[in-house]
Amino acid sequence: MALPHAQSGEVASVRPLGAQLAQATTSAILKAGQLEVMRVVLPTGKSMREHQTPGEATVQCLEGAVEFHAGDSVQLLQPGDFVHLAPRSPHALKAIKDSSLLLTICLLPG
Amino acid sequence: MALPHAQSGEVASVRPLGAQLAQATTSAILKAGQLEVMRVVLPTGKSMREHQTPGEATVQCLEGAVEFHAGDSVQLLQPGDFVHLAPRSPHALKAIKDSSLLLTICLLPG
Repeated sequence: MALPHAQSGEVASVRPLGAQLAQATTSAILKAGQLEVMRVVLPTGKSMREHQTPGEATVQCLEGAVEFHAGDSVQLLQPGDFVHLAPRSPHALKAIKDSSLLLTICLLPG
Repeated sequence: MALPHAQSGEVASVRPLGAQLAQATTSAILKAGQLEVMRVVLPTGKSMREHQTPGEATVQCLEGAVEFHAGDSVQLLQPGDFVHLAPRSPHALKAIKDSSLLLTICLLPG
C-alpha cells in the first residue's frame, strides 16, 4: 500500500521499529523536489545489490547491523552510524541482523 | 576547532551524545556539493531564532526535546521525530531539554 508522504513541517517518525521490525517493509517518508527519504528494511541475510544514485545520498543505520560494501571495502554499520555517498558511488548493503536504515537521496544529479 | 568533514564512504557517528551532551557544541558532519549535514546542539532554554534555507532541509531529533516553531504552529520534537522543510520555510527551534538534532540541508536553491 502506498503511504502518503510527509508534508513540509509535518512530523514523521524514524524511531527504531523494534518488535515491529520483523513485519515491516521498506517505506517512503517523503519525496519532494530535491530530497527523497525512505526507511529501508533489510531482514537478516538480505542484500541490496550494488547500485548508485545520480546525486548525493546519506545512509543512517537506525537499528540492526548492516555490511556496507563500496569497492573493495566492507564496513559495519550499527545504530547511529552514518555514511555520505558522493554522486554515482557504487555501493551495496547486506543485513547481518534484522535492520532498518534511513536513506536520504538528493534527487538532482551531482 | 574546525573538524575535518567526513569523506564519501567514511562512517561518522550520529548517536546520541548522552553524558557528553552538556559539554558538546554544534559540529559539522559533512559539507559536500549538494548536501550539508551537521549536529546542532541546543542546551535547555536555548533557541535557534527564525531562519530559513534556500533549499530543502530535514531535521531529526537525536536526543532531548525541542519545540519546532513554523508560522503559528508549535510541535514538540523528541528522539526519532523527523521533519522536512520546503525551500525558504521560516522556522525556529527552542530546546526544552538538552538536545541534539541532525540537520541535513540541500545546498542548491529550491
